[in-house]
Amino acid sequence: MSLAGAVGPVTHATLDDTLPQRLHEELETFLRRNPHRDLAPELVGELTALVLSGGKRLRPTFAWWGWRAAGGESGGPLADVVLRALVALELLQACALVHDDVMDRSTTRRGRPTAHRLFAARHRRDRWAGDADHYGDCAAILVGDLALAWADDALVTAGLPADALGRAWQPWQAMRTEMIAGQHLDLLAGTRREESVAETVRVAGLKTASYTVQRPLHLGAALAGADPGVTEALCAFGRDIGVAYQLRDDLLGVFGDEQVTGKPVGDDLREGKRTPLMATALRLARAADRTDAIRQLRHCLDGGAVDPGTIAEVRALLHDLGAVAAIEQWIAELAQRGLRALARAPIDPTARGRLVSLAAKATTRKR
Amino acid sequence: MSLAGAVGPVTHATLDDTLPQRLHEELETFLRRNPHRDLAPELVGELTALVLSGGKRLRPTFAWWGWRAAGGESGGPLADVVLRALVALELLQACALVHDDVMDRSTTRRGRPTAHRLFAARHRRDRWAGDADHYGDCAAILVGDLALAWADDALVTAGLPADALGRAWQPWQAMRTEMIAGQHLDLLAGTRREESVAETVRVAGLKTASYTVQRPLHLGAALAGADPGVTEALCAFGRDIGVAYQLRDDLLGVFGDEQVTGKPVGDDLREGKRTPLMATALRLARAADRTDAIRQLRHCLDGGAVDPGTIAEVRALLHDLGAVAAIEQWIAELAQRGLRALARAPIDPTARGRLVSLAAKATTRKR
Repeated sequence: MSLAGAVGPVTHATLDDTLPQRLHEELETFLRRNPHRDLAPELVGELTALVLSGGKRLRPTFAWWGWRAAGGESGGPLADVVLRALVALELLQACALVHDDVMDRSTTRRGRPTAHRLFAARHRRDRWAGDADHYGDCAAILVGDLALAWADDALVTAGLPADALGRAWQPWQAMRTEMIAGQHLDLLAGTRREESVAETVRVAGLKTASYTVQRPLHLGAALAGADPGVTEALCAFGRDIGVAYQLRDDLLGVFGDEQVTGKPVGDDLREGKRTPLMATALRLARAADRTDAIRQLRHCLDGGAVDPGTIAEVRALLHDLGAVAAIEQWIAELAQRGLRALARAPIDPTARGRLVSLAAKATTRKR
Repeated sequence: MSLAGAVGPVTHATLDDTLPQRLHEELETFLRRNPHRDLAPELVGELTALVLSGGKRLRPTFAWWGWRAAGGESGGPLADVVLRALVALELLQACALVHDDVMDRSTTRRGRPTAHRLFAARHRRDRWAGDADHYGDCAAILVGDLALAWADDALVTAGLPADALGRAWQPWQAMRTEMIAGQHLDLLAGTRREESVAETVRVAGLKTASYTVQRPLHLGAALAGADPGVTEALCAFGRDIGVAYQLRDDLLGVFGDEQVTGKPVGDDLREGKRTPLMATALRLARAADRTDAIRQLRHCLDGGAVDPGTIAEVRALLHDLGAVAAIEQWIAELAQRGLRALARAPIDPTARGRLVSLAAKATTRKR
């Protein structure tokens, strides 16, 4: 890095620090200069608005540091190409969000109405023929399809050397299928009234651990041609931190401060979301033979926790049963194990520092 | 070809003739040996059932003959790899079908219930929680997403040389976006009560000409490294034959024999499908100042042609206005122009013969 950093332009030397801004620029360039954007202006417009409206850029950030950990040089000749390839991760996430919002019938996303609601509103405004809500769903399905197809286009056309692209395809392939499988398991957890801790953790493993942390790290490592030991350590780290991240997310979904998270208090309870937290509470209630608690938790999981009073009661119950403490304990153990896996790996020291701090943020965050 | 054909296995020398069967085998292999199939068994099961249940394999067939036209050798060392890459086209089509069926609320496909109906039925059978139809739509959205992601996987992991994959990506990229844009325009034609011939032809151009004929030929030519003249001629041929194919499809949708097409007589009329045929009829009715005919056509396009009597009347009207003759004339002109473009191109003679006969079938078919 020292030589390349010394002769390269200043922006290269600081790509580590300007990553979110540079990702935003690359996303904008990919979307605005896409040769096919005029074929479907409404779909592309909505995809662009969603992608450029924010988001934590978590997946490309983990991928970048996976690449840097395995020897990729932030001032090296491939840095810009790798950055461009990571646009694919945000487009894939756009597909996941738009399709999830149709499935969950969500109304807002990143502070804007969701895609299907926007298209339905346009249908109503212009007094078009047919069912406005169905049209909204259909258009949103197509926005998601476009995002998924363009995600692959972004990766393939980034300008990666053929061998790097070939190596990257394995985690990329796994990641896309894991994302889709995770969403299906999430749906099934609701429809099947899932109560098992193992199954809810499996969903968290696919939807968050693999898709959000582990595979992005794996992809970055693959782009850098990491040796198997490094890849394995990054994946082990990613898996544990990813599950811990989701467990923290579940706690915030129930106990988070509305002022900080931007989501209504107890939103997950209102939706009856089947999380490891709720499954743990049920397990503890069963172990303690607390029939009333079991009934109350099931009522909540069936979508019955609609008033602030019930929500406050369930929150108190989760503490009382020891479920919150159990999840906190679990997060701490996962974080420790993940960091141990990272500590053993022979990786770039700058990347190590950043990954440790990303892990800390992911597992202790307040939003 | 002679040398490779002479020393290669017999199956290679006859790949030209065993194409549908070999495609079926490659599809089966890709789906059954996919390393991620166990992550989402229900989704993969439905995708497999749909893909292996038939279909005309039109797109890979055109792609194969595009490759052969541009010098690809059916007994050559790349033939098997190219065949394997063409699995991508059938998976992409599976995505289009499953998502279209959700959008059109279709109930059957290839003689089976549609994916969303199957999943909804399973939900009802097992008395799961929530809305069965919504679950069916959600699961079908995910089957389509899986098909789209796996289509790209099939192309990228087929074993193509890096330069061939790089060349193929341009038509592949165009094709996926054209498919999605065409589906959106098709939706919009209905919601906006589209009556213009130009706009309905534009939908046919994207959904059928580009996606079904032109781009597959283009993809095949790109895999073979065709020179620009050959690619251009194949694309010009594909565009005209593709539009003619769709115009024929529209005529069959209104006048086709149920015994032969397998679809109920006048199905397109019942659905109020906005085709170039209907737009042409409206244009002719307006030119002849036939207010009654205009009213009757609009009634049909608004979904009012539900009884056999009305359907028979609209059919008679389409003849009477000269719309059927106009479309037949148009098909003939497109076929001639397409064949002229092909005749000028310096392509493989076997491929030329097959493409001429594919064009004849596409434009004069009865089903």
